[in-house]
Amino acid sequence: MASVKRYKKEDIVTYCLGATVSMEYLNIRPKDVKQIYLHSAFYESETKEKILRICSERNIPCEVNDKVFQILSQKENCFVIAMIRKYTCELDRDASHVVLVNPGNSGNAGTIIRSAAGFGVTNIAIIRPGVDFFDPKVIRASMGALSRINFKYFDTWEDYEKTDGAGSRHFYPFMLDGSTLLHETKIEKPFSLIMGNEATGLPASFSKIGSPVRIDHTSNIDSLNLPIATSIGLYEATKGDFRE
Amino acid sequence: MASVKRYKKEDIVTYCLGATVSMEYLNIRPKDVKQIYLHSAFYESETKEKILRICSERNIPCEVNDKVFQILSQKENCFVIAMIRKYTCELDRDASHVVLVNPGNSGNAGTIIRSAAGFGVTNIAIIRPGVDFFDPKVIRASMGALSRINFKYFDTWEDYEKTDGAGSRHFYPFMLDGSTLLHETKIEKPFSLIMGNEATGLPASFSKIGSPVRIDHTSNIDSLNLPIATSIGLYEATKGDFRE
Repeated sequence: MASVKRYKKEDIVTYCLGATVSMEYLNIRPKDVKQIYLHSAFYESETKEKILRICSERNIPCEVNDKVFQILSQKENCFVIAMIRKYTCELDRDASHVVLVNPGNSGNAGTIIRSAAGFGVTNIAIIRPGVDFFDPKVIRASMGALSRINFKYFDTWEDYEKTDGAGSRHFYPFMLDGSTLLHETKIEKPFSLIMGNEATGLPASFSKIGSPVRIDHTSNIDSLNLPIATSIGLYEATKGDFRE
Repeated sequence: MASVKRYKKEDIVTYCLGATVSMEYLNIRPKDVKQIYLHSAFYESETKEKILRICSERNIPCEVNDKVFQILSQKENCFVIAMIRKYTCELDRDASHVVLVNPGNSGNAGTIIRSAAGFGVTNIAIIRPGVDFFDPKVIRASMGALSRINFKYFDTWEDYEKTDGAGSRHFYPFMLDGSTLLHETKIEKPFSLIMGNEATGLPASFSKIGSPVRIDHTSNIDSLNLPIATSIGLYEATKGDFRE
């Protein structure tokens, strides 16, 4: 057994905490699953059978080891942990993107990933500094949807703009003083929805990039929460796209 | 000094943790603020001056007491706590509502409150069992926006429908198999957006109530997170309403 320690950013592996989250990686990126840990209290179930079957088919080591849960999980309802080899992704330059400029909160990042995957926007650029997408808290908040997206870090906005953000792409920075209202803006594809930090928003310089938009709301609140604003943007930009 | 204990649902008071959250209650419902606690490490600032001024004007007791912070707050960046007398609200029967059927998570409830206040829908019905809106975790996640809304608990959906939900009101249950797509549905006012529990959604019986709607997304995810779905509903239902 590899020795297991609390997650640190510089580690070469990360962890999916929980059965649903682990199943996503087993289904979508089985080659990156190095090891499955089961808790001795994990009840017999369809999920357990599926996990054991995939591990057997894919030669993924699977062991019962309660100590790993004490080290990695604070929640009582966690019975499965998947150890994931960290991987790198390339962004699809023809596809639409979400660009997170200095995202600060891991739960928010996970919720944004879940929404982005849900709305079929599976490429996310992160402008540093930003939360570590491989943090188990991010993976858990994404419900494992991290497995379904490409994500890549850039040191600066300009680095993104010159490389994966280049070409005939439409930029929509979300700003409290954006010049047009989201619901009156035709979002052209491929788009990049650009979202700022939770506390500080986007730097004012983004008002000169593409078409800055704002989501109309009352003065009851200063701003919408970041995953909410991002998801409303994704909803507006993709509605009508998923017709069977 | 009143003795301070960790919050319990049956308490007659609750707490705002943090300066921003406490300021909302001091501004919006000062009569319900019984006491302000400051941490000795709270730096001199405009916010501190404002708090001291409101306390002085309103005769709200204000004391430096670090022990209260040890008992009530796990976060290091909390320097102000407001003790709030619990109050009861009536819903506005002519206004639009959000109806939460068995909401289970306090952070989600707070995020929904913040969005609802943001989109000007300031009446929320909760169908029991449901999280305690006075839980300090709810108030904190709402960023204090709880102070700006009316909320009321009902034992059953029928209790709501017969009383505050009665009259010429339009019901929109949000369901994964809703018969129409949200973005193709004209949301008539006054509306009640009806949202189910995080894990189980709405009971199937809601498909016979009003106009069930669904938010279109890919099969990458099972469902959107509850505050995201609620906020997209609120956005769609109110867009264009806040023109200056």
